[in-house]
Amino acid sequence: MTDLPEVSGLTIGILGGTGDQGKGLARRFALAGHPVLIGSRSAGRAHEAAGSIGNGARGAENAEVAAEADIVIVAVPWDGHKATLESLRAPLSGKIVIDCVNPLGFDKQGAYALPVEEGSAAQQAAAVLPDSRVVAAFHHVSAMLLLDPAVEKIDLDVLVLGDDREATDTVQALAAQIPGARGVYGGRLRNAHQVEALTANLISINRRYKAHAGIRITDV
Amino acid sequence: MTDLPEVSGLTIGILGGTGDQGKGLARRFALAGHPVLIGSRSAGRAHEAAGSIGNGARGAENAEVAAEADIVIVAVPWDGHKATLESLRAPLSGKIVIDCVNPLGFDKQGAYALPVEEGSAAQQAAAVLPDSRVVAAFHHVSAMLLLDPAVEKIDLDVLVLGDDREATDTVQALAAQIPGARGVYGGRLRNAHQVEALTANLISINRRYKAHAGIRITDV
Repeated sequence: MTDLPEVSGLTIGILGGTGDQGKGLARRFALAGHPVLIGSRSAGRAHEAAGSIGNGARGAENAEVAAEADIVIVAVPWDGHKATLESLRAPLSGKIVIDCVNPLGFDKQGAYALPVEEGSAAQQAAAVLPDSRVVAAFHHVSAMLLLDPAVEKIDLDVLVLGDDREATDTVQALAAQIPGARGVYGGRLRNAHQVEALTANLISINRRYKAHAGIRITDV
Repeated sequence: MTDLPEVSGLTIGILGGTGDQGKGLARRFALAGHPVLIGSRSAGRAHEAAGSIGNGARGAENAEVAAEADIVIVAVPWDGHKATLESLRAPLSGKIVIDCVNPLGFDKQGAYALPVEEGSAAQQAAAVLPDSRVVAAFHHVSAMLLLDPAVEKIDLDVLVLGDDREATDTVQALAAQIPGARGVYGGRLRNAHQVEALTANLISINRRYKAHAGIRITDV
């Protein structure tokens, strides 16, 4: 693995931080010593989520979080993804924006990938935020494991995709802040769709094997 | 993991078995003691490939291989995928057909997933072969590792996708014939696209880390 940049002390903002995935990531970054800002459309729900995480996490409206944080994670529901990012273009300008959204549908047979006009949620983010440094990562990490106080280490490689080498290096370093996890470069943003969609397969695997499956990349 | 069916002794036919991926799989199944039939449009090239593999592998035209084998692996180039399968509908009827084709494009920035009208190569195979039991598997295994006599074990989970439980169980058992590999159920055929497309990411990973990357599923 390459030398990765130092990320300790960076303030991590999480848009949609009141959902399980956002809250789980917030919890692990707060435990790792990062100042963490939980964002929500409602400041009240953001404060509540921050309180449940503790470890110094604070809550605020999405726009305030986008403005204050050094690095911003997008963990909003796919439904409001585009509109939320469009409304935050100015405060997110120049920043590393990490998209971890999985556009999935669900029916009786389980989960499946939704078509996305731009190719993927991450590419949609890049289209909507031309002045941000968009990286795709943290798609596969189980919210349940992130939130479980009994889970000390998570056996997982976080695939990190993007077209800006310094940004992907930074996000790889951030992934390594979760005990047990490793950030592995996974390709350019144009190859983000299949990484997002693979979450549907992991859901099938979880159902078949009664597991919280993740992936590891071998020979790296 | 569930109990998997016994597959030893089954004859494995490989359409497009003269390409690296097909030849590599043929070699490992022949080493595991399976009768192996290498298929090609040209009987001459099929014989040549079978000779280079040894271990009892035989070569024949694709149609003969489709008719004779118990289980057929489709390892043809994406270009000729649909036409080849259409021409083999009758001999493939009733059989387990394993599609391992990755519809990829390549340019200066590396590999990327091609759009497929049916959703994926595997779904195209299922549409063209309504009377076969189509399973998607063996997308990520490195041809170089399969063919390298110095490589005794391949550290890899083979994701096996399909809608027919007995067929996916059988293919999982077959994957386990490659030393070091394991077959893991990966979901229904409608979620095959992202598994095929993920090969583009593995190619990016190989380039970045100078590796022969594969994947492992954790917690299973």
